[in-house]
Amino acid sequence: MRVSKLFTKTRKTIPADETARNAQLLLQAGYVHKMMAGVYAYLPLGKRVLDNIAQIVREEMDAIGGQEVQMTALQPKELWEKTDRWDDAKVDNWFKTRLANGTELGVGLSHEEPIVDSLKPFVDSYKDMPLYVYQIQTKFRNELRAKSGLLRGREFIMKDMYSFARTQEEHAELYERVAAAYGRVFKRLGLGEDTYRTYADGGYFTDKFSDEFQTISPIGEDTIYVHEGKRIAINKEIYNDENLARLGLKKEELVEKRGVEVGNIFPLESKYSDALDLYFTDDTGKKRSIIMGCYGIGVSRLVGMIAEHFSDDRGLVWPDSVAPYRVYLAQLGTDEKVVTAAKKLYDTLQDAGVTVLYDDRNARPGEKFADADLLGIPHRVVVSAKTVDQSVFEYKKRTETDSLAVDIEKLKSILTA
Amino acid sequence: MRVSKLFTKTRKTIPADETARNAQLLLQAGYVHKMMAGVYAYLPLGKRVLDNIAQIVREEMDAIGGQEVQMTALQPKELWEKTDRWDDAKVDNWFKTRLANGTELGVGLSHEEPIVDSLKPFVDSYKDMPLYVYQIQTKFRNELRAKSGLLRGREFIMKDMYSFARTQEEHAELYERVAAAYGRVFKRLGLGEDTYRTYADGGYFTDKFSDEFQTISPIGEDTIYVHEGKRIAINKEIYNDENLARLGLKKEELVEKRGVEVGNIFPLESKYSDALDLYFTDDTGKKRSIIMGCYGIGVSRLVGMIAEHFSDDRGLVWPDSVAPYRVYLAQLGTDEKVVTAAKKLYDTLQDAGVTVLYDDRNARPGEKFADADLLGIPHRVVVSAKTVDQSVFEYKKRTETDSLAVDIEKLKSILTA
Repeated sequence: MRVSKLFTKTRKTIPADETARNAQLLLQAGYVHKMMAGVYAYLPLGKRVLDNIAQIVREEMDAIGGQEVQMTALQPKELWEKTDRWDDAKVDNWFKTRLANGTELGVGLSHEEPIVDSLKPFVDSYKDMPLYVYQIQTKFRNELRAKSGLLRGREFIMKDMYSFARTQEEHAELYERVAAAYGRVFKRLGLGEDTYRTYADGGYFTDKFSDEFQTISPIGEDTIYVHEGKRIAINKEIYNDENLARLGLKKEELVEKRGVEVGNIFPLESKYSDALDLYFTDDTGKKRSIIMGCYGIGVSRLVGMIAEHFSDDRGLVWPDSVAPYRVYLAQLGTDEKVVTAAKKLYDTLQDAGVTVLYDDRNARPGEKFADADLLGIPHRVVVSAKTVDQSVFEYKKRTETDSLAVDIEKLKSILTA
Repeated sequence: MRVSKLFTKTRKTIPADETARNAQLLLQAGYVHKMMAGVYAYLPLGKRVLDNIAQIVREEMDAIGGQEVQMTALQPKELWEKTDRWDDAKVDNWFKTRLANGTELGVGLSHEEPIVDSLKPFVDSYKDMPLYVYQIQTKFRNELRAKSGLLRGREFIMKDMYSFARTQEEHAELYERVAAAYGRVFKRLGLGEDTYRTYADGGYFTDKFSDEFQTISPIGEDTIYVHEGKRIAINKEIYNDENLARLGLKKEELVEKRGVEVGNIFPLESKYSDALDLYFTDDTGKKRSIIMGCYGIGVSRLVGMIAEHFSDDRGLVWPDSVAPYRVYLAQLGTDEKVVTAAKKLYDTLQDAGVTVLYDDRNARPGEKFADADLLGIPHRVVVSAKTVDQSVFEYKKRTETDSLAVDIEKLKSILTA
């Protein structure tokens, strides 16, 4: 993509009411547009980051046998009454609307009910399981306050997966397989080192724990106690002697940290399947309950989380795996030889499968370098009269201060690594 | 994908209230799940078709320089009051909702306003145009009746693109470039022959025509008059002597047909840009209006349209470009040699980049063939004891009745063509 064609630009000023650093950075760099508190639209660069994160999540869910579906936002009241999650006194963050004829509808805040409902024509035998079904879809939650930028939205994008098992043993296996896949997701997103599987409350219909995936961060809303050796943690909510004993953890081995919940997995037992009349017949002909698990990853939250986590005083710093473009190609000056060399490199890199944001503008070097930094593109290559004369390219990583003079072969080997 | 693992199955019975043939077929084949009238969720096979269509549209919009964004469903009232499209007396198919504090919100029925709003921080000079911005996103329309299955939904997926031009001449160029891209989209979707660019009413703020892309179909809601030689048509709405003269068309050359509107493009003049205070400064320093165009393609409507258009009495018949899988591999019997040969072919085809739905079930041949037909997979390959003994595969196209005995090289050349 040529910077001269990209309709967004880096901004000097951003909406004054934006207090979250992740949203400030993303607004300043032109990645998102704020519609209202907690509701952000994705502009071209932000859309690419969002899609990159979603694709990593998708690949890891597919790899363990997840089947992708797409539920709807509009939800019929009757379905949610069956699980007692319709009444505003029970679930306090619905957005509700009405059909033209007055019938009340919900705007999807979660999708356990419709997913179970959609399985009913197909799942009734022990032969139909085990099973994972997932989607990457918008959720709507009527939050009173939404001041954390993309970390807590009123409209946001989540991957939600559900597992369906015949026995508790099978459920436990499915559950652990997703936990392992989550580890791979966060590693690929560059958050592996800083993300801990964290025991938390399992909710009111199970005595099991649930698991959160918490990324250590000063902006975290949660307090967690980390065991660095075992690479696990325990949420403050359930941090008491009884639970520590259950988990075999000792207080003196744990360190208090702040964490951002980037994923969670929890046992649903048969709450939703029973309530929605989804049972199966086992191999002896007996009708039995289906054991479900639920597995979330906050895809749009991760856009904000990664933006803020890796940023520095010059702007965003994307990991390669999620960056909107891998290379920022800064052409300095408009000499014909410079333009020719830059254009040739642009084509060469793209032909090699490397995504490039090509700064072809007639602008000062300082402006280009500041933009490259603010946008957070992981690799910067400069083409100037000097580099052309020396038959080299000036290469610098976003995370380093010194640049290198490299020839085309070296440059290609760095950028296709 | 193995059929034994796919959670959906073909269905004997479908919801009795479903009267549209496209939805009946898609429900019976397990492609979609009906949440309520006009609201369908996509199950794994349906999701793949939806994504294939969206990807063709995306590629053609990218090819003409479209920049992809993603707007939000939640919409602030203030924005739509500026264009006088908030009041239910003016726009009668809003879904509206409220924030917890009582503030009224809209649930996006269209996105002209937010797209223009999102451009405001970036576009103010003649250097910032021409420009195409598009998204593939859900729309919500509070239709009184929704009885056409996926052809007219209350919640549906559209590609909507907007062009921004400095002059009428530039606008006309952008407009024609999209019209040409639409031709390529419908051709790739297999609808090229049957789809006509159709002159229609331009709306109340322009005296230009708009253009619809109408696919000839007995289920069409629109009446159009087709000039087969010129490959254009005129909508009945504007079919009068004055307009025929303007378009240089003669009544006796036109044939009356029914059409389904699969796309539309129309001039917006500067209605939205002016109302939302998006202007530009020209190269003489003068403030000027921005001329917009709007370009829609009904992505989820096309799922229903293509389903119905190509179906026969045995079920769906997908074109290769949109089929969820290219090949239905039917393994007949459970002899070890048959299973080994089928499994080997499954791997070989997938390694060659061919998507395969592998029917590994222990089921009767007739059941497998009926499913292959109902699901509408374009190519069927049978592996049986007989084919293995003869070192061949039995190959048949969904649209043909006779099968061929072919060797692996011939099969690969057919399926990778």
